[in-house]
Amino acid sequence: MHLLIVGAAGMIGRKLAEAVAATGKIGATQVDAMTLADVVSPDVASNFSGKRTQLTADLSEPGTAERLIAQRPDVIVHLAAVVSGEAEVDLEKGYRINLDGTRALFDAIRHVDGYTPRLVYASSLAVFGAPFPDRISDDFHLTPLTSYGAQKAIGELLLADYSRRGFIDGVGIRFPTICIRPGLPNKAASSFFSGILREPLNGKPAVLPVADDVRHWFASPRSAVGFIAHAATMDTALLGANRSLTMPGLSATVADQIAALREVAGDRAVALIRREPDATVARIVAGWPRDFHTTRALNAGFTAESSFRRIIEIYLEDEMGGRVTHIPTGS
Amino acid sequence: MHLLIVGAAGMIGRKLAEAVAATGKIGATQVDAMTLADVVSPDVASNFSGKRTQLTADLSEPGTAERLIAQRPDVIVHLAAVVSGEAEVDLEKGYRINLDGTRALFDAIRHVDGYTPRLVYASSLAVFGAPFPDRISDDFHLTPLTSYGAQKAIGELLLADYSRRGFIDGVGIRFPTICIRPGLPNKAASSFFSGILREPLNGKPAVLPVADDVRHWFASPRSAVGFIAHAATMDTALLGANRSLTMPGLSATVADQIAALREVAGDRAVALIRREPDATVARIVAGWPRDFHTTRALNAGFTAESSFRRIIEIYLEDEMGGRVTHIPTGS
Repeated sequence: MHLLIVGAAGMIGRKLAEAVAATGKIGATQVDAMTLADVVSPDVASNFSGKRTQLTADLSEPGTAERLIAQRPDVIVHLAAVVSGEAEVDLEKGYRINLDGTRALFDAIRHVDGYTPRLVYASSLAVFGAPFPDRISDDFHLTPLTSYGAQKAIGELLLADYSRRGFIDGVGIRFPTICIRPGLPNKAASSFFSGILREPLNGKPAVLPVADDVRHWFASPRSAVGFIAHAATMDTALLGANRSLTMPGLSATVADQIAALREVAGDRAVALIRREPDATVARIVAGWPRDFHTTRALNAGFTAESSFRRIIEIYLEDEMGGRVTHIPTGS
Repeated sequence: MHLLIVGAAGMIGRKLAEAVAATGKIGATQVDAMTLADVVSPDVASNFSGKRTQLTADLSEPGTAERLIAQRPDVIVHLAAVVSGEAEVDLEKGYRINLDGTRALFDAIRHVDGYTPRLVYASSLAVFGAPFPDRISDDFHLTPLTSYGAQKAIGELLLADYSRRGFIDGVGIRFPTICIRPGLPNKAASSFFSGILREPLNGKPAVLPVADDVRHWFASPRSAVGFIAHAATMDTALLGANRSLTMPGLSATVADQIAALREVAGDRAVALIRREPDATVARIVAGWPRDFHTTRALNAGFTAESSFRRIIEIYLEDEMGGRVTHIPTGS
């Protein structure tokens, strides 16, 4: 099977490529060839034993979509996107990449007779916008409050329509907030959700800009890769006409996160969290969903973590060789 | 005030233009200038006392959107669309007119500094798709089962995003099935809902292809014009970020329609309805919504008929000079 990852240089794209390289499989399916595409060279998974192709490609440029599918990959994982903050600052770039780029990919596929690849489309919780209930159901409407969210919701509609018409075999997955993100803190308003765990686990101070009772929806990077693998190989007859699903996750408060950190790494780790309330961040986060019923995704076989302790352990296993190196466990 | 109607040659566009010409107003607002645009010459409302401009214009052609807004109309009513059946047969045309044409209009407006017209966008019940509950709420998700429905849902997302960002002041209205449509029967699967009333009222036979217990959602052409007039002049602060609303209507069965016909025009009119079950039409109609909660629209001041007798009377008043001419009332 030939796997194409569009957006392979991003955090999830890299982890997916590395997982495929490590096992030679996606889900239970053998991967013989893997094409890694991104706007910057996706220098990853060099240990892959199958045929590996790297492409530097901007999906919004004419001809790029056709080039990406020239080898007729069986499974396409479409992760490429301008992120939320940038799509809000630069309206034209956001629509060009997130809407026109996605449509160019779908249309390039549509124009090839008899070619109907599985297409895994990365959507987002940003398709939801307040006001919403405390716990959002599978049939709740999409009312995005950012241009990024609008573009992702439009992509979901195109995915469903093109799947219904038989051009692609699409699965759209709305990722929870991924936690613990490896690497450095960034400027995303959500950065602290990972930072308040990752930084103390590395012996560094972290800033908490919101109250301890703030609730949000989480899954680990390992679950994110698992969602994609399942979407890439599942029986899509389970989905019906609506091809996008809110992924399962863990609804947890900041207090839950901190309690789990204390369990795993002790009071000295927790003491590295400094409370610095930030009204702007608090206001942004207040507009984010807190909890979901994900019956459709669970019935379709998607799974995620059920405790924050487990989410932290996965970070330790995947990023720190299984150990807390800087902070003694216990206090 | 300068009013632009895009799609002025269609049934609703014509009725809107005629209503404005007759009163010199839209809602309570004086209309000084009216621009009527369509792909065919919208030869209508010649009795308008204000400045009247006719444009033959295809919104999907480069430069057309800029030309339409060159005079900076204060209110734009965007009714232009490839209809459901054609958008399903010709995918490219449907996306070109319904998606790219709408986006071209919105983008042309966006590029004019300091210009934020009221934009009334014609959406459709086709944004909904089965499975759904017997009565659909305002917060139920959009899962269109046609390309037309997908394009209309995408238009709603663009309308909301461009309104949120201050480029347009948008109101999207999801029309009920309009009944009684004047004119001739057409090939739309919904044609019989008007035909079984209109044809007998004109002394002609009509075919009923579905069972009497089929339920659907209706409003008169007069209500359709009223929805637009209200959307053109209402306080949009009432809407919040979600700019599209399901319009109020009347949930009625075919049996309710026939009972109302009997009340107004007697048994001889009803006897002109011939039952010819058509499995294809029945299957299509089974996928259509039957009833709605329209709390948001009612709270925002939109109104529609509450009986089918009234819907029939409006047809008689507006299309037949108030009288049933061919069938004696009573039986």
